Amino acid sequence: MRAVVMYAPGDVRVDETERPTIVEPTDAILRLAATCICGSDLWPYRGADHVDHTPMGHEYVGVVEEVGPAVRDVKVGDFVVGSFFASDNTCEICRAGYQSRCVHAVPMGSIGTQAELVRVPLADGTLVATPGIPDADLVPSLLAASDVLGTGWFAAVAAEAGPGKTVAVVGDGAVGLLGVLAAKQLGADRVIAMSRHADRQALARHFGATDIVEERGDAGVERVKELTGGLGAHSTIEAVGTQESMMQAIRSTRAGGHVGYVGVAHDVSLPGEELFFSGVHLHGGPAPVRRFLPELIRLIWDRTIDPGKVFDLTLPIEKAAEGYQAMDERRATKVLLTF
Amino acid sequence: MRAVVMYAPGDVRVDETERPTIVEPTDAILRLAATCICGSDLWPYRGADHVDHTPMGHEYVGVVEEVGPAVRDVKVGDFVVGSFFASDNTCEICRAGYQSRCVHAVPMGSIGTQAELVRVPLADGTLVATPGIPDADLVPSLLAASDVLGTGWFAAVAAEAGPGKTVAVVGDGAVGLLGVLAAKQLGADRVIAMSRHADRQALARHFGATDIVEERGDAGVERVKELTGGLGAHSTIEAVGTQESMMQAIRSTRAGGHVGYVGVAHDVSLPGEELFFSGVHLHGGPAPVRRFLPELIRLIWDRTIDPGKVFDLTLPIEKAAEGYQAMDERRATKVLLTF
Repeated sequence: MRAVVMYAPGDVRVDETERPTIVEPTDAILRLAATCICGSDLWPYRGADHVDHTPMGHEYVGVVEEVGPAVRDVKVGDFVVGSFFASDNTCEICRAGYQSRCVHAVPMGSIGTQAELVRVPLADGTLVATPGIPDADLVPSLLAASDVLGTGWFAAVAAEAGPGKTVAVVGDGAVGLLGVLAAKQLGADRVIAMSRHADRQALARHFGATDIVEERGDAGVERVKELTGGLGAHSTIEAVGTQESMMQAIRSTRAGGHVGYVGVAHDVSLPGEELFFSGVHLHGGPAPVRRFLPELIRLIWDRTIDPGKVFDLTLPIEKAAEGYQAMDERRATKVLLTF
Repeated sequence: MRAVVMYAPGDVRVDETERPTIVEPTDAILRLAATCICGSDLWPYRGADHVDHTPMGHEYVGVVEEVGPAVRDVKVGDFVVGSFFASDNTCEICRAGYQSRCVHAVPMGSIGTQAELVRVPLADGTLVATPGIPDADLVPSLLAASDVLGTGWFAAVAAEAGPGKTVAVVGDGAVGLLGVLAAKQLGADRVIAMSRHADRQALARHFGATDIVEERGDAGVERVKELTGGLGAHSTIEAVGTQESMMQAIRSTRAGGHVGYVGVAHDVSLPGEELFFSGVHLHGGPAPVRRFLPELIRLIWDRTIDPGKVFDLTLPIEKAAEGYQAMDERRATKVLLTF
């Protein structure tokens, strides 16, 4: 089967690899309907994370082709969505809603889902079936639920976005844009998108942004304060993962407010005294997407939300390298790969 | 009047200073029933914070002796408790429960309450009257509400201590011990006090600790994990403020759990990647004690709680220097000063 492999930073190829097989009795094999490239795939692409002949990808939707003997709920022929962490969904951590930190969690990135077929561990805990085989136009949105929508949603929940709240969003990548969508869906009064790109600003407004701030860093913080009576946002979503974006998020938030951070932290160090006196709540990490999948699938199925709009480039998997390049050069927000 | 002044690190004196007067129409003047020395007063005493002929103290209870013309609710003759931040209790931040970050907040430490009389700004917002003049044995507990109890209580609330939860407490000073009391009052199933001092362990047990862990740092983390099925505490209170104690608190907490941190951070730097993958909630800062004062006064007045037990040394104000020395050398947990 065809699968994307990153040989080294900047060197993405599509190899013919072995078809996956059931390893554990709780596994399922999926034939993917689509897969995609994540903003976090750019960390190794740019040399910030180690990479060496690594199978890529952790987002996936598709049809169950085979299940192990211990799989009870997932059936061959089901169309399913899963998260980027496989999880048993029964341990104490899962039951508390933190499936990405399941005691048996398996990162799907260690398996690689930019491939025609993929083995999903802990299938019953990990996969959520859609009500039927989706119309083709729903596939991108269902694929978004697998990570970027689920992650943006978690960030908005972690930031306690809701009625009466002003939510600021730091980061205009797919996760930030879908954080805007989530904040709006959760009932926020006002959503401030921080972006200096006209096309991303337009998408942010489509998803529910009421205000756009183009300034970054401390100038961006000042603009958010001006928009919030000098106090700062009630809720801030951080969707980048750099020192600057984390500090921008914390400083944009009022005392007692909430920062939901989901950008994978790289070289971030939070100054204890500033954090102490900020008085904000800080919560984030790898999103427990599984917690939200049933609700997100319902909203997509009912066509209440259209997160698939973040895909602004669709390529056949053979052209995956072009997709990585387009995202690296910010010519594309998010790239969908087809078979 | 007599007032404690720290001339330089380690040099504490009791001076005869000018009697305070009403400066703003919203001020009140209190004659203190008692005051005390805070663990945070040791930072300047040890040279970690700047100090130069500085009036000391920020905890206080006493009787209202005079009020400014704009004071409406507080009456001359009232016995009152206030927080270490004066606050208007009407701004948007106060109404959200973050009075320590009131837009008009005045740190009482900038005025100094280790004195016979003290000027309290924003009297109506800051002071809460007790139901009457308290019995003498209640005064230490009411004084504790002014900071250490309110701070320990906030830490427990920030850590979301409650029924079904295991709460770990890092720090066995007065705030940590009262964090134990708060966790117990909030209904926690199990409270793990981390302490290696027999007298503090005994007080922790009196306040509701069910388990004692003597190990520190990573060894302490391992013990907490052993006691919690390998997962870590649901809730952790951090009441020290050092790098080691913050990391111990974060690492002792399960993914999705809550760290409430109230130790004033000194030279703390939180590694972003570890924090990201920890998946904990982090909330803390200067405690909004005013939020909790009505409830804390009620619990003390009804003799449901006895936080005054943290005072293990009582001295006349003339001997304040002895009190600082005893706390610095950890011969005393907390020192009460009388007039």
